[in-house]
Amino acid sequence: MCPHALIPFKPAGPKSRLSDILSPEEREAFARAMLEDVIAAVKDVNCSPVIVATELFDSEDIQITIPDKDLSGTLNEVLPQSIGTILIIMADLPLATGEAIKRVISTKSDMAIVPGRGGGTNVIFLKDPAKFHVDYYGMSYLKHKKIAEEAGLSCEVIDSFVLHTDIDEKEDLVELLTHGTGKSRKYLEDLGFVLTAANGRVGVERKSSAPAPSA
Amino acid sequence: MCPHALIPFKPAGPKSRLSDILSPEEREAFARAMLEDVIAAVKDVNCSPVIVATELFDSEDIQITIPDKDLSGTLNEVLPQSIGTILIIMADLPLATGEAIKRVISTKSDMAIVPGRGGGTNVIFLKDPAKFHVDYYGMSYLKHKKIAEEAGLSCEVIDSFVLHTDIDEKEDLVELLTHGTGKSRKYLEDLGFVLTAANGRVGVERKSSAPAPSA
Repeated sequence: MCPHALIPFKPAGPKSRLSDILSPEEREAFARAMLEDVIAAVKDVNCSPVIVATELFDSEDIQITIPDKDLSGTLNEVLPQSIGTILIIMADLPLATGEAIKRVISTKSDMAIVPGRGGGTNVIFLKDPAKFHVDYYGMSYLKHKKIAEEAGLSCEVIDSFVLHTDIDEKEDLVELLTHGTGKSRKYLEDLGFVLTAANGRVGVERKSSAPAPSA
Repeated sequence: MCPHALIPFKPAGPKSRLSDILSPEEREAFARAMLEDVIAAVKDVNCSPVIVATELFDSEDIQITIPDKDLSGTLNEVLPQSIGTILIIMADLPLATGEAIKRVISTKSDMAIVPGRGGGTNVIFLKDPAKFHVDYYGMSYLKHKKIAEEAGLSCEVIDSFVLHTDIDEKEDLVELLTHGTGKSRKYLEDLGFVLTAANGRVGVERKSSAPAPSA
């Protein structure tokens, strides 16, 4: 149990698909709040977070700094050197819970994976990291399943919507305002975001242009 | 165990948000294929499907026919008369598996619920149906949680992406072509739909205008 949890994170210019509704500063603060929610979930099951960031930023947690463009390459240098199990979990999963992560790291298979929405990979758990390599571009979920198969690793797919739900676009905020319990939900609410329902469809709306919260 | 599984279904004119990529006939056949995937999952855990349809259609399974506009009202007439446990599961969940449904019906709480994407409710399991009523319009997930609370029913939220993923829009087809294993995935593939990746984003594309498959 208690693996290291690698959390890739981009402190500067994150979440560009939210540009229509959040300013650059707000997007940075929001990404940071989501990261903190993920760190809390990871710590909840006694995993040690290691933030794999594209630049150094102010944080009390351990950081590895990597070049912006090559997440897969950097992780593939880290994995063979790892002693013990490794969890790789994305920073934009603010619905993550300790309970869900526990299901991942309790797998009886050689590894476990949680697909992201839209063909991506949100979480990978590796009992023997040296035997696997990552490839995060495009349809990474199918690629990771294939890499596991070619490496002869049994791979459990964990059926979790809280780990499946990455927050990239405005519609995704519906999920956060419906199910979130942490800092990133509070950050959105402090900015004035609320759920709306028109014609039976649920959406989000920014009610007031309140001053940016001190997050 | 072995509850009746009520499956609301609209045989005529379903899935209008797929109109851009599927003809009316194709949408009907696709909705039917998704229903069959849900029925298969339900039967996999020995639940008895009862299709709650807006009109009579050709099927070997038990059907209840209800007025188109009042799903909640009709279900609320059925629930108090039910003997034993009831599962209500939507027909547009083609990723549903017996394993996921088993997690729902194995709850130790008075009831269990699986939220749908966008604030909806995809699955409800009731140990004592007479004590609950449904309200499917708008943000039904939050409404159902509140109804449970007001009725004094303990309610477990089941964390499942296969039951969370309802298929309504073109982007949702990515999920079906990535994770699906049943008839509705095959139907899409027979129509020529494939996954595509451009600029790291995964989408779907209809490759050929092949003749409609005999589904």
